[in-house]
Amino acid sequence: MNSNLGIGIIGAGRIGKVHAESIAFRLPEVRIKTIADTNIEEAQKVANKLMIPKFTSNYKDILLDRDIDAVLICSPTDTHSQYIIEAAENKKHIFCEKPIDLNVDKIKEALRAVEEHDVKLMVGFNRRFDPNFKKVHDMVKNNKIGQPQILKITSRDPEPPNIEYVKVSGGLFLDMAIHDFDMARYIVGSEIIEIFAEGEVLVDKRIGAEGDIDTAITILKFENGAIGTIDNSRKAVYGYDQRVEIFGSAGMINVSNNKYENYTYLDDGGEHSSLPLNFFMDRYTESYYQEVKLFIEAILRNAELPVSGDDGLKAVQIALAAKQSLLEHKPIQIHY
Amino acid sequence: MNSNLGIGIIGAGRIGKVHAESIAFRLPEVRIKTIADTNIEEAQKVANKLMIPKFTSNYKDILLDRDIDAVLICSPTDTHSQYIIEAAENKKHIFCEKPIDLNVDKIKEALRAVEEHDVKLMVGFNRRFDPNFKKVHDMVKNNKIGQPQILKITSRDPEPPNIEYVKVSGGLFLDMAIHDFDMARYIVGSEIIEIFAEGEVLVDKRIGAEGDIDTAITILKFENGAIGTIDNSRKAVYGYDQRVEIFGSAGMINVSNNKYENYTYLDDGGEHSSLPLNFFMDRYTESYYQEVKLFIEAILRNAELPVSGDDGLKAVQIALAAKQSLLEHKPIQIHY
Amino acid sequence: MNSNLGIGIIGAGRIGKVHAESIAFRLPEVRIKTIADTNIEEAQKVANKLMIPKFTSNYKDILLDRDIDAVLICSPTDTHSQYIIEAAENKKHIFCEKPIDLNVDKIKEALRAVEEHDVKLMVGFNRRFDPNFKKVHDMVKNNKIGQPQILKITSRDPEPPNIEYVKVSGGLFLDMAIHDFDMARYIVGSEIIEIFAEGEVLVDKRIGAEGDIDTAITILKFENGAIGTIDNSRKAVYGYDQRVEIFGSAGMINVSNNKYENYTYLDDGGEHSSLPLNFFMDRYTESYYQEVKLFIEAILRNAELPVSGDDGLKAVQIALAAKQSLLEHKPIQIHY
Amino acid sequence: MNSNLGIGIIGAGRIGKVHAESIAFRLPEVRIKTIADTNIEEAQKVANKLMIPKFTSNYKDILLDRDIDAVLICSPTDTHSQYIIEAAENKKHIFCEKPIDLNVDKIKEALRAVEEHDVKLMVGFNRRFDPNFKKVHDMVKNNKIGQPQILKITSRDPEPPNIEYVKVSGGLFLDMAIHDFDMARYIVGSEIIEIFAEGEVLVDKRIGAEGDIDTAITILKFENGAIGTIDNSRKAVYGYDQRVEIFGSAGMINVSNNKYENYTYLDDGGEHSSLPLNFFMDRYTESYYQEVKLFIEAILRNAELPVSGDDGLKAVQIALAAKQSLLEHKPIQIHY
Repeated sequence: MNSNLGIGIIGAGRIGKVHAESIAFRLPEVRIKTIADTNIEEAQKVANKLMIPKFTSNYKDILLDRDIDAVLICSPTDTHSQYIIEAAENKKHIFCEKPIDLNVDKIKEALRAVEEHDVKLMVGFNRRFDPNFKKVHDMVKNNKIGQPQILKITSRDPEPPNIEYVKVSGGLFLDMAIHDFDMARYIVGSEIIEIFAEGEVLVDKRIGAEGDIDTAITILKFENGAIGTIDNSRKAVYGYDQRVEIFGSAGMINVSNNKYENYTYLDDGGEHSSLPLNFFMDRYTESYYQEVKLFIEAILRNAELPVSGDDGLKAVQIALAAKQSLLEHKPIQIHY
Repeated sequence: MNSNLGIGIIGAGRIGKVHAESIAFRLPEVRIKTIADTNIEEAQKVANKLMIPKFTSNYKDILLDRDIDAVLICSPTDTHSQYIIEAAENKKHIFCEKPIDLNVDKIKEALRAVEEHDVKLMVGFNRRFDPNFKKVHDMVKNNKIGQPQILKITSRDPEPPNIEYVKVSGGLFLDMAIHDFDMARYIVGSEIIEIFAEGEVLVDKRIGAEGDIDTAITILKFENGAIGTIDNSRKAVYGYDQRVEIFGSAGMINVSNNKYENYTYLDDGGEHSSLPLNFFMDRYTESYYQEVKLFIEAILRNAELPVSGDDGLKAVQIALAAKQSLLEHKPIQIHY
Repeated sequence: MNSNLGIGIIGAGRIGKVHAESIAFRLPEVRIKTIADTNIEEAQKVANKLMIPKFTSNYKDILLDRDIDAVLICSPTDTHSQYIIEAAENKKHIFCEKPIDLNVDKIKEALRAVEEHDVKLMVGFNRRFDPNFKKVHDMVKNNKIGQPQILKITSRDPEPPNIEYVKVSGGLFLDMAIHDFDMARYIVGSEIIEIFAEGEVLVDKRIGAEGDIDTAITILKFENGAIGTIDNSRKAVYGYDQRVEIFGSAGMINVSNNKYENYTYLDDGGEHSSLPLNFFMDRYTESYYQEVKLFIEAILRNAELPVSGDDGLKAVQIALAAKQSLLEHKPIQIHY
Repeated sequence: MNSNLGIGIIGAGRIGKVHAESIAFRLPEVRIKTIADTNIEEAQKVANKLMIPKFTSNYKDILLDRDIDAVLICSPTDTHSQYIIEAAENKKHIFCEKPIDLNVDKIKEALRAVEEHDVKLMVGFNRRFDPNFKKVHDMVKNNKIGQPQILKITSRDPEPPNIEYVKVSGGLFLDMAIHDFDMARYIVGSEIIEIFAEGEVLVDKRIGAEGDIDTAITILKFENGAIGTIDNSRKAVYGYDQRVEIFGSAGMINVSNNKYENYTYLDDGGEHSSLPLNFFMDRYTESYYQEVKLFIEAILRNAELPVSGDDGLKAVQIALAAKQSLLEHKPIQIHY
């Protein structure tokens, strides 16, 4: 699948680098033409390492470049909707990191631009492309569990983010559980119509001082009658804990964590084995590669993208409803 | 530990038989003197099999027998509180199956009689004595997970009860989840102060026609700040599913199901292993024995019982709050 | 299944007690009439605890008692063949602990007596009745793995026996691996025709000083073409390790150890779980009960016994061949 | 770690491609200058795909190229020793696929050339670099199990090789178990001093017709007193089965197979999960990358290589002893 598809990357931070490496090392059929970052030194470093011909501090250099067909938006959340609009106006296909925005109106405006200029937009819900979760999704879709009835998602981080990030991230539901809300829709295959959220500050009081929580359980109600529960914590001492269970009329599937190594060690104190992968970059390495690969393949084949802008919008709407439920201490209906 | 402790058993149904066999076969230090059942033939059958010297259709024959020191109440729920009161008046120590009653006032009246006549009362929350759950409880108590933060209980039956039972049982929260509410208190070691319940009829419409649900998720809030979630289903096609997970500031413990056999079979279609124990009598064999053993030992040693009448009361109060939450579709504070 | 079958038990040591309790508590359809032990106090203790009417220091009191139909021989190995012969002469059915004897001629003589007097003899290879191993046997028999090709048995004790026992036991192959040789025949369903043994003294030099080994691997060749390997150690610090794996043309089955509890605990150092059951009495509780139950049921129904005297003979023949292989450092053909 | 290290690859078959891709995509600090294959079209295909500047049908084009510092020998086994000698004469560092040769004298001659011309030689025992096996090795080395006593290796292929390959491969011990012999030395950390092999033809009679076997068990004796057993089969219907267990005075470690996905599925027929990775390229993806990475890093840093020529020699000596043991039906001492 050789091609002349040109790629631009906006944002040379952690996730920008991951995608740049995926493309440079593992997707030789396309070429990154330019990488942009307001911190020009970061952009230069990545460009040098990956032999990307141009780097810039101005994202517009990418959007105006006629040799660039598709753009990856890996910049801070508050720039996403603006960049999507400008990229669409410049006829670039768009891969945008989640969340699109914390504001529903801004997301809708961005989606209108995408539609109007007839470009493709994919939102980076990478976990859908994790081989384990994809397998569960496929099995549910292939009716292996019959009618889905109960969904359970566990999603716990190894460490809380720093307080500066908590101040701007939109909080636990918008920066962390948003992945789980998307996963819930993906696995159950039905829309979430109601949510109730319980939240506590049990990990770090400074998080509470910012008006956020660090521990939460939510109950979800789906259009198809299924119900679900998600539990989140900002700090699991044993590492990154990401599990899904789906129970239905004909069976049940669950996915446990991947481990660093696959050994069992017994001594006189018990049986011991490896901890789960401790860092989202390790846990989701394959999913980050797969999502970018699928984005590029869909562009090359002019096919539908596996995660739409609407998926990006809905996840934010659910997260906002969770926040509202926590605040008002009652279940909240979600109207999309 | 030989003794002359005399035991009477009221109720020769399924659970009455289990306890009678435990005592007859595995607790040779005490003797069952009489077994009573309104169905005298059932009482006779058990008496013959286990060489119990007397059987009767009248429970009063037990309560008035001076050679009987302790009584096991295994009759239908609506007789429990009355039998407790009469047993207390006759100075018998009491083991009563759960729930004590569906009505809080009646329970309180029974507990007052127990207190007034200074007898011992233990409620049959047998799952506390399952070796796995007991281990988790002990590890939490011994601070293995630090401060408890998130509790997750999965409790699914292999088959719904018959509709006649649903009509009188008090519903899913009072006949089934009541075990899980007690387990929640037992594992976390703190009182439940609020509950929110979501419920659906997904298994059998006839259950819905009786005003009950067959699938539920509840969120619990504990006095110590921990939060929890329980999911219940009346029908898991793969068998009886009873799991607990407790997550805290220093670690996490979970208990999965016991299986019939401990084998792994691989053929060209995958890896296969045994289903979980499919019947509560199989799953909790050991716990039924342990609870009766502990009851008898505590009587013989005049020691405190491991499950109190107050534990029996609280589980019902939580279950009633869950019903109310479902009805009013909002979280309910629980005042004990 | 009530009956007047009378049982006598010769030997009130550890295993004699286990069988006595199985019968007293869990097999109410038969009665133990007498228990004998050269140490009369041990016999009395067991008799008192289990309400056995008679105890004696003379095993002949059992063999000559006309009310006794079947006898369990749980005395030291060097008495087995003599007691079998006398029991047969007195028309008692016989359950004999393994090994029948360390001497093949003596075993054959005992088997001739059994045949001549037309009584039943079962040898106590209890592990065949462990639910896990029985399941594997049944699956192999039901062609789940196709043609058996490779057998692997792991059999490791938690602690070496005391040196006095090593002096008289016949050594690792005759007192320990003999169980595994029987298991091999049972699982594969074919006779062992050749054996090669490698052995070392790695655990305790005193064992070596007695001319025995404490660590061994054997290779087995079966009549049906399958091959197998057994590894034995006298000391596994993590407990009693008893596993079986059978590989065939259509699949593979393995059985791992049973654990004390079924929990998983994660802290920042790894994932931890319970050790395997550490004592053969715990590991094989159910199998000890099942073998005695099957013995009694077969007597009552006049049916064939699940382990024959010939099975007892063959296990010893294989163990002796293993010893010879070790000594001569070459593979040994086994002629039955 | 940018450098001007030039690499040449001899052999554009399956394994040559794997290494070429590892270097092209994941080791950007070095460059493949030329790829050679007697089938020039294959060489061209790989060169085009990976943008390798030169391709050739003559391996000497690589050995004589002054811009090439290191060469990967991925051609058929019977060319290895000759190419090693010529590469050494041309002062190239060498990575050679296993086995070096089927003939011990030829291997020794090649190793002499390597020594004489003072180049580095690494043999492709990739499994040492599998993260799981490496972990076990490291734990043993760090004394986690105390003194090693029993080693068990299971190594089964999903499908037998084609008969043409069997004719020239040297047989099961030289083309397949050779990996396990190296693994045994690697894990136990001691030399194998004796071997006994049992082998059968149970999978495919045509293999037997070529004088080879398809099913084998070997017993190993190590210099440090440990003993071990390896079982091999050419055909496991459930996929590629690669497990290691090491038991010692202070503990035990085992490594089970990696699976395609990490899910558990329960329906009314049992619990089901994914098969093991079914193809050595999938199972050892990471190990192939790691070994080439370590080779290149050691060259760049002028450090010792993790697998020596002597390791390559010893594995062949052990495999030949296994063949001899099978033929002579007795244990064989190995003299290196």
